[in-house]
Amino acid sequence: MEKAETIRYKATIAYDGTNFSGFQIQPNERTVQGEVEKALKTINKDKFIRIHPSGRTDSGVHARAMVFHFDFPRSIPKEGLFRAINVLTPADISLYHLEEVAQDFHARYHAVGKTYTYRVDNQKIRNPFTRNHVLHHPYSMDIERAQLALDVLVGTHDFTSFCSTKTDKEDKVRTIYKATVERDETTQEWVFTFVGNGFLYNMIRIIIGTVLAIADGRREIAIMAEILEAKKRGAAGPTISPKGLYLEEVHYDREKLKTPEKIRDNR
Amino acid sequence: MEKAETIRYKATIAYDGTNFSGFQIQPNERTVQGEVEKALKTINKDKFIRIHPSGRTDSGVHARAMVFHFDFPRSIPKEGLFRAINVLTPADISLYHLEEVAQDFHARYHAVGKTYTYRVDNQKIRNPFTRNHVLHHPYSMDIERAQLALDVLVGTHDFTSFCSTKTDKEDKVRTIYKATVERDETTQEWVFTFVGNGFLYNMIRIIIGTVLAIADGRREIAIMAEILEAKKRGAAGPTISPKGLYLEEVHYDREKLKTPEKIRDNR
Repeated sequence: MEKAETIRYKATIAYDGTNFSGFQIQPNERTVQGEVEKALKTINKDKFIRIHPSGRTDSGVHARAMVFHFDFPRSIPKEGLFRAINVLTPADISLYHLEEVAQDFHARYHAVGKTYTYRVDNQKIRNPFTRNHVLHHPYSMDIERAQLALDVLVGTHDFTSFCSTKTDKEDKVRTIYKATVERDETTQEWVFTFVGNGFLYNMIRIIIGTVLAIADGRREIAIMAEILEAKKRGAAGPTISPKGLYLEEVHYDREKLKTPEKIRDNR
Repeated sequence: MEKAETIRYKATIAYDGTNFSGFQIQPNERTVQGEVEKALKTINKDKFIRIHPSGRTDSGVHARAMVFHFDFPRSIPKEGLFRAINVLTPADISLYHLEEVAQDFHARYHAVGKTYTYRVDNQKIRNPFTRNHVLHHPYSMDIERAQLALDVLVGTHDFTSFCSTKTDKEDKVRTIYKATVERDETTQEWVFTFVGNGFLYNMIRIIIGTVLAIADGRREIAIMAEILEAKKRGAAGPTISPKGLYLEEVHYDREKLKTPEKIRDNR
């Protein structure tokens, strides 16, 4: 059997979403996909290479580990390709891993789940250094109320109430394996963590908008179950700013996904 | 005795230096002083208020606690003034403290020293989230060599070799009480800390440029004493990027300054 002329690569990148109009390529917009494909085209002697991500992120959303795949000529060695991508992409994108995978690997179809975090600064005075990376929410908040609201979401539910009406997805049933909030002792920020088999359009931003209202006492904890039951976007809280949201990991191992407490150890 | 019509305030602000052309006001440039004075003018019914800083910072240099003083009409209560400044300044400036001080307090003349830090990321792959706040220096480095080089600087010396030739200061003698480098275990960054009675123009950036060359083996440790002795700018290393540099504290208490290990506890 002849060797294929191209190798399929699985790439893991981090990006600061602040100055991007989201991940997905759009005409006349600065996008992560656009910048990566520009770099690959340069490396590939001006021949276009399409990348296939595990999913999209919205304008302003960050990623510590977005995954995509692409096919690239065998003639350029992996190490050189890795370095060239890091040199040719702008400073708000970094390639952390590049792995040769089977020709049938697919970043989106083979993904079994994702981990997202959302960071909230609850201190009175805003921090100028985190203004694009953490939501400043300087109101009195009760972390136990927030956790009780999150607990309602764990499991398999129809998340229509927590999905933007602009979605094109019919099936709104998703499974959340983990939904927690913890204090980061170093930064004093609240860190929300979500592990699930998939997330709908704006889902985490709507969940956070709702949970913050419960945490600061504007809404009752019991409302969370009612919102879920209502299956209407209007029942939930506002879509919060994207700036505190991070795609932390794309999962390809179903067993690890279902025991999310082990995920961090296995990274 | 009649009460003065104005109160003198000591203000402590933090700012992200990335998008400022330094602290000091300049025509047609976005500066920290310019933004603060604009806010004060608005609060003061369109009448200009001059602020007097403890010193300047260059374009791109950050501050966690820059101090300045200004005189403001007694008619506006302190709490309202504090809130109004935070509302009217842009998101890359925050006012953390506002204190009524004696009419003869002077932010610059009464300052007895300063603490600066410089952050270096020594990991192979750049971190997109810290690109404006930490120097990425992905070369093999020996932290013990760096500390030995820093040790040479502690004490009272003529720092001509570590001063930009663009300075207008005649006296280049300064005292450094502390010069250390430590690993920040959370971020894995190297954090250089300098406590001194004053720092010359570009002094810390030239020190870091020199120490990094020693740490990564390009220059010998012994060169540090020779550079100091030479009293020529050309003897030292390059002026490093401002993006890792932070004004951490302005000192007004001479006793605390001389026992710098206590400074952190006293903040």
